[in-house]
Amino acid sequence: MKWSKTHLFTLKEAPSDAEIPSHKLMIRGGFIKKLAPGLYTYGNMGLRAIRKFESIIRDELEKVDSVEILMPMVHPKELWMETNRWNEMGAGLLKFKNRNNHEFCLGATHEEAVVDYVRHELKSWRDFPKNIYQIQTKYRDEIRPRFGLMRGREFSMKDAYSFDVDQTSALVAYDKMYKAYENIFNRLGLQFRIVQADAGNIGGSQTHEFQMLADAGEDSLLVSDKTSFAANIEVCPAIDSVPYQSKDTELKAVEKFSTPGQKTIADLEKFTSVPANELVKTLFFSANDGLDARDTALKAFAILLRGSDEVNPIKVKNLLKMTNPPQLLTDEEVKTISGANPGSCGPVGLKIPIYADNGIKNLKNYIVGANENDYHIKNVNHDRDYKLTEFADLRMAREGDKCPESDGRLKSYRGIEVGHVFYLGQKYAQKMNGNFLDKNGRAQFYEMGCYGIGVTRTVQACIEQSHDQDGIIWPKAIAPFHVHICLLDPKDANLSAYVEKIDQSLSEKRYDVFVDDRDERPGFKFKDADLLGFPVRVVVGKKGFEANEIEVVNRKTKEVHKVSPDQVVATIEKVLAIL
Amino acid sequence: MKWSKTHLFTLKEAPSDAEIPSHKLMIRGGFIKKLAPGLYTYGNMGLRAIRKFESIIRDELEKVDSVEILMPMVHPKELWMETNRWNEMGAGLLKFKNRNNHEFCLGATHEEAVVDYVRHELKSWRDFPKNIYQIQTKYRDEIRPRFGLMRGREFSMKDAYSFDVDQTSALVAYDKMYKAYENIFNRLGLQFRIVQADAGNIGGSQTHEFQMLADAGEDSLLVSDKTSFAANIEVCPAIDSVPYQSKDTELKAVEKFSTPGQKTIADLEKFTSVPANELVKTLFFSANDGLDARDTALKAFAILLRGSDEVNPIKVKNLLKMTNPPQLLTDEEVKTISGANPGSCGPVGLKIPIYADNGIKNLKNYIVGANENDYHIKNVNHDRDYKLTEFADLRMAREGDKCPESDGRLKSYRGIEVGHVFYLGQKYAQKMNGNFLDKNGRAQFYEMGCYGIGVTRTVQACIEQSHDQDGIIWPKAIAPFHVHICLLDPKDANLSAYVEKIDQSLSEKRYDVFVDDRDERPGFKFKDADLLGFPVRVVVGKKGFEANEIEVVNRKTKEVHKVSPDQVVATIEKVLAIL
Repeated sequence: MKWSKTHLFTLKEAPSDAEIPSHKLMIRGGFIKKLAPGLYTYGNMGLRAIRKFESIIRDELEKVDSVEILMPMVHPKELWMETNRWNEMGAGLLKFKNRNNHEFCLGATHEEAVVDYVRHELKSWRDFPKNIYQIQTKYRDEIRPRFGLMRGREFSMKDAYSFDVDQTSALVAYDKMYKAYENIFNRLGLQFRIVQADAGNIGGSQTHEFQMLADAGEDSLLVSDKTSFAANIEVCPAIDSVPYQSKDTELKAVEKFSTPGQKTIADLEKFTSVPANELVKTLFFSANDGLDARDTALKAFAILLRGSDEVNPIKVKNLLKMTNPPQLLTDEEVKTISGANPGSCGPVGLKIPIYADNGIKNLKNYIVGANENDYHIKNVNHDRDYKLTEFADLRMAREGDKCPESDGRLKSYRGIEVGHVFYLGQKYAQKMNGNFLDKNGRAQFYEMGCYGIGVTRTVQACIEQSHDQDGIIWPKAIAPFHVHICLLDPKDANLSAYVEKIDQSLSEKRYDVFVDDRDERPGFKFKDADLLGFPVRVVVGKKGFEANEIEVVNRKTKEVHKVSPDQVVATIEKVLAIL
Repeated sequence: MKWSKTHLFTLKEAPSDAEIPSHKLMIRGGFIKKLAPGLYTYGNMGLRAIRKFESIIRDELEKVDSVEILMPMVHPKELWMETNRWNEMGAGLLKFKNRNNHEFCLGATHEEAVVDYVRHELKSWRDFPKNIYQIQTKYRDEIRPRFGLMRGREFSMKDAYSFDVDQTSALVAYDKMYKAYENIFNRLGLQFRIVQADAGNIGGSQTHEFQMLADAGEDSLLVSDKTSFAANIEVCPAIDSVPYQSKDTELKAVEKFSTPGQKTIADLEKFTSVPANELVKTLFFSANDGLDARDTALKAFAILLRGSDEVNPIKVKNLLKMTNPPQLLTDEEVKTISGANPGSCGPVGLKIPIYADNGIKNLKNYIVGANENDYHIKNVNHDRDYKLTEFADLRMAREGDKCPESDGRLKSYRGIEVGHVFYLGQKYAQKMNGNFLDKNGRAQFYEMGCYGIGVTRTVQACIEQSHDQDGIIWPKAIAPFHVHICLLDPKDANLSAYVEKIDQSLSEKRYDVFVDDRDERPGFKFKDADLLGFPVRVVVGKKGFEANEIEVVNRKTKEVHKVSPDQVVATIEKVLAIL
């Protein structure tokens, strides 16, 4: 394709709302363009990368007999009421009424739609297993869309669904898809990790995330330095690498003391000279979940943590079997419950359930808020001074924590979630009456799995991992074009004919060739070539051509091969082969 | 692909809401499945046909340098306010508020979005011409969706947009796309007509529709039997083939007479013995258009037609330069304006604008309603007895009318609109500030064209035109599979190996092969093969195989070739070659 025949305008500067490199580069290279917050037009170059990634997905899913269909993007309310997700999904599910006053939503995920698609057909054990997927535009009403395609409102997703007669086969299906995903992401040739994760409001008991590593990733991952253990911080067990032992052997008498203006753990650490990991902080949450949240009286609970730890809301959600992570109470609500501002609160005297992180277990004679403004109590001990509902792992794991599977340590990474596999069990089948007759003629609910890949997000994640200060470094597998020819003298008929010839010969070998035939200065063209970032750049100018010397440049390494015109195709192939 | 590996369940009976053959066949063959009214899931087979048609479109558009992009499906209100189509589009444009209370719509068409995409970039005459397209899911909030994909709510459309510096180049672009469309529809190998049409609320002064011929088509077409003239009835000039001449030479005196209970033209024809084409009927419409419709007092006008003619609302809309076709007044409103029920109304004494169809011009001494219930007046003459605002062509043309370009006659067809090309002029550029600097450095608005193809609708239209009592007859170009192998003894290893071999050898020649490997009776399999309708059916059974005789059947003609196993591939190729 020639630049003059396409619609492509590069930008020197990224717009101010682009915060991370991949977002900036995609905008600057014309790969995407914003229509409104979270809504992007994919330019021809962006679309080419997306389509290539889609082809990889289709190819690998075909190998595991997954069947492609396409479901509607608009769903009737009745469908989502069957699983109650019409209410449970929260404000991210965009709902509207049509002209006939019927309620609909924009599909944010398609479990309900796919069960409706199959439930009148999968009637006998002979109809299983089935695996169905689509590549479809999804919509999630993000409150604050950002990072380009990474957290947009409208985005493209591949979602697959497996149907099996029992748990054993469902887990076989899960494993097949897990491996297909490994193959898909391996083909991108970039760094990713497969981690244990939380199932969110999709449901299900086994789930893994595929995370593309990148500093700007929104997810925090912890990976063992000794075993294959890897987990999203959301679910990573937090185990102290050196178990804490209190120096005290006896329980001392409690003592209230004045702590004027000491509101944070940092304040208190300074004020009392007790290290943060020996202080106890008390957090207050609402137990009102899902529908409850709006309709009923406030139900509160408290969480105790060491001052040095952060609470993990997903662990709290899972401990309390809530649908969504719990909300922190407002200062006003905390005051009503405890009698004091948050900075002066503690567990002693509270009349609500109290859960404590395991890190508290071995503390003795510690300091907590007195539930009276500007006062704390020292020498507090659980069991003796207040009653705990339960100890549990409620803190965020961190780098250096112990690997849960070995005596290794955890190392921290940032990742972009690009894929997610879930084993769902019978959750959806039960709610939507998805049953079949087994070999004995008995009606059974089928078992499901669901499997997502963020198509547009993956493309951006590749860029986030693979770029330099000059622009994008496309992985060969999804590069919009493989070869970028800078034709420096586009009006020279000889040169144009030569470029035409190598274009044709590369096309026959199924390489995609882009020719910059604009009437622009060489430096300008080289800058754009670096920005667009196709794997190989070829510089065809009059001077070089006459000197029998054409430059073939590896975009990633910037290595330059100067070869004679008749060696160019072979050289390009050689460079592409090692990428 | 093997039946056992896909998800496909055929139905003996079509659901009761499927009214036309193509809709019934697509449902019965599992090509589509209803999620809700106007919302369909495309099964794997349906999706394959759609994708093949998309490939044809991409291929032909690439030849005319149209560049593919993909725009969002959700658009902000502000964008549609720029052209005022937020209001003008009516209830078919689905609008909603997001969680932040911002207003959006689901894109029903993308003129606004594409102008926004290019307007910051097309700044110089050097940047033209440009032609940009997408294949995108569209949503129109049809009040009564029906006929499957033909009039659905969510559907797939290819929409292209051209940008040119002046009208001359814009019409060149129009012509290029017109020819690309001809090529696209020619590749389907079916009957279609290109007709003059109305621009609707897209706007523009030149426009053609591409109509797939089919009895169930919603559009009425009139085609000359002598020239290339062809028009949608909406805009077809109506010219009497034998001009009417009144037998009367003098104007007689008007005379009121009693017509008790004579309400319709048919009643009056019987009662007065005057033929319908010499009676005059008076229709009342509202001139309130677009925003007006809700906000201001009723503005009415009357249309006069011969009793034998039907009014053409599009012609009335265009005559009065309205945005949408005018609405008929209610009986109550008519009474307020004329003093009588609609059956007794006429032009004499009316105080509103009166437009008359050309067919009235040569009538003399005719009968009209007296504007008094149960009375008519005879010997009425325009100019003498009432004042006409204007004569115009306002009636529906019909078969047998004169060809507007020759002395030929018009012949009537039914069609399904599958493509539409519009020359838009500067309408959108002016409203959205789409300007560029011309060669003289002066700011100019650019000229646009827009070009749509209903992708999913075309696939169904093909079936509507090409089927028989047993099922679909797919055109080769978009058949989900080329070859349907009925493997009658799937457990026989020899037969399976043989089928595997011909599958592989056909696949190498880029034919798509479907194998029915189900454990079912032959008759059952043949019925499904006819229903699914792939071009060639091959019957591989133990008996035939041992007798050295395999059946290769042409789905369309039902012609059977009995050949030896080693002749099967060559025979299939021969049959496909003539399709």
